[in-house]
Amino acid sequence: MSRLEPQPYCFEYRKTIEFSETDMAGIVHFSNYYRYMEMAEHAFFRSFGKSVHEIIDGVSVGWPRVQASCDFFKPIRFEETILIRLTIQEIRRRSVRYLYYFFKETDEGEILLASGRIVAACVQINRDTGAIESIAIPSAIDEKLQEALASQKL
Amino acid sequence: MSRLEPQPYCFEYRKTIEFSETDMAGIVHFSNYYRYMEMAEHAFFRSFGKSVHEIIDGVSVGWPRVQASCDFFKPIRFEETILIRLTIQEIRRRSVRYLYYFFKETDEGEILLASGRIVAACVQINRDTGAIESIAIPSAIDEKLQEALASQKL
Amino acid sequence: MSRLEPQPYCFEYRKTIEFSETDMAGIVHFSNYYRYMEMAEHAFFRSFGKSVHEIIDGVSVGWPRVQASCDFFKPIRFEETILIRLTIQEIRRRSVRYLYYFFKETDEGEILLASGRIVAACVQINRDTGAIESIAIPSAIDEKLQEALASQKL
Amino acid sequence: MSRLEPQPYCFEYRKTIEFSETDMAGIVHFSNYYRYMEMAEHAFFRSFGKSVHEIIDGVSVGWPRVQASCDFFKPIRFEETILIRLTIQEIRRRSVRYLYYFFKETDEGEILLASGRIVAACVQINRDTGAIESIAIPSAIDEKLQEALASQKL
Repeated sequence: MSRLEPQPYCFEYRKTIEFSETDMAGIVHFSNYYRYMEMAEHAFFRSFGKSVHEIIDGVSVGWPRVQASCDFFKPIRFEETILIRLTIQEIRRRSVRYLYYFFKETDEGEILLASGRIVAACVQINRDTGAIESIAIPSAIDEKLQEALASQKL
Repeated sequence: MSRLEPQPYCFEYRKTIEFSETDMAGIVHFSNYYRYMEMAEHAFFRSFGKSVHEIIDGVSVGWPRVQASCDFFKPIRFEETILIRLTIQEIRRRSVRYLYYFFKETDEGEILLASGRIVAACVQINRDTGAIESIAIPSAIDEKLQEALASQKL
Repeated sequence: MSRLEPQPYCFEYRKTIEFSETDMAGIVHFSNYYRYMEMAEHAFFRSFGKSVHEIIDGVSVGWPRVQASCDFFKPIRFEETILIRLTIQEIRRRSVRYLYYFFKETDEGEILLASGRIVAACVQINRDTGAIESIAIPSAIDEKLQEALASQKL
Repeated sequence: MSRLEPQPYCFEYRKTIEFSETDMAGIVHFSNYYRYMEMAEHAFFRSFGKSVHEIIDGVSVGWPRVQASCDFFKPIRFEETILIRLTIQEIRRRSVRYLYYFFKETDEGEILLASGRIVAACVQINRDTGAIESIAIPSAIDEKLQEALASQKL
């Protein structure tokens, strides 16, 4: 499966590029794409009533990234709006693997700008020590993710 | 007293401008100056063995900003090195008022690029609730700040 | 006139706080408020069909900040939505002075979180050398700003 | 070859973590690692007298990222200093492939925190239109990169 083939997806997120996100080359600085992927993921969680950072059954749950990568095909510029499509590639017991596709919407159709991948681990954060420990995805969240995965379509 | 007159100061901090700190106008995005002022302040704390975020006598102490402003005279660009001079303007019971002067060092002398002001309040942070409450500056820190203030010179 | 009295304003902008905008104190890092003020200003320009960075009559026009300050009253946290009200305080020949008020909207009413001020200078940017020179506000933009100023209300 | 085996490298870069780089989970926000990799690469260029963004023979040369990825093993926290080792994996005609290893230096030895990869393409930037076009690496830079590659050692 090519990374560039259309993928079934479960969530769309749009964002307009801010001036402070550009660099002296006149385009969006690449480090922002990783923030955009995360923004889409957090908005996805909100779409089913959850947060990536909340107390569940007395446990402070978070989703640090284990791996994140991005391929850049075409630059994005100030005041352009990007469309990000989020795909759940795999739900494991303690982590989720997402794909992200960045598009520019034009009258001639969608232009693929970039594609990325994030593996996010489910952890509990010890509020006193700051220590982070891998845990199984809480069932309340796992259910929602499974539903989203089952409903993915092109 | 003009803001542009030379000020006695107690700490110097140098920083080279990163690519990701520039914007499409080809200069450093202004929001970074506030980060630079804070970096200088944190390095100042480290210079006397303290941290702006530490546990003192069992209390989680922090220094949120109550006010921050900056005047911009000349732009800074990628790979230029700036010199920041930190002046303690006033130490109050629960807050400190700092002045910052940004310079570019050239063969012909220092060029003033910007000047800023920060008022930082001393607080305790409740680690369970995240609540923030103003407190008197812990004596271990107050002593160091008083020493630095007393030693300021042009 | 107190800074905290309600101000007539000409534009409203809402923004939801992203995870990457928080810091280890659990609140939005203060440097982001300056980005938020700028975002509101840029969205304000878009609201009347203009951009803060465009070619007007062959000249590359920009709006660097001459001064920016902010007073912080209450912290903002992840996934909270802030309302920013933009007030034009003064339109000069070569610069504009804005006020910004940050609110959290609750069932009990609006809570003032912060207030800021920005002076933005109108400049032309030499695309070859990167040199920046102050210019009179182009009439196409001045007209829109004057209209917005005239229409401000509480 | 495992990504975690020690790699020959040609450049070392140290950076102390700033407060503004942390997030509400108390650790460095992952998007910063991509900025750190770029900082190391830019400092590497400076180490042989070059810049990633300069005019060479009248052409504005830049190095946008084609791909960037990072694996995160252990979190980094405020005021910790990280050591980044840069490895040139491959020099192609129009791009360079770098590896980056992030370490924390302790009395018991180095702890691997993260490892990343960046593919940077050499381009010319049209200063009037902003258009970006792939070019062969200018020989003045290629020479320096080849020297660095030849000198890599564990």
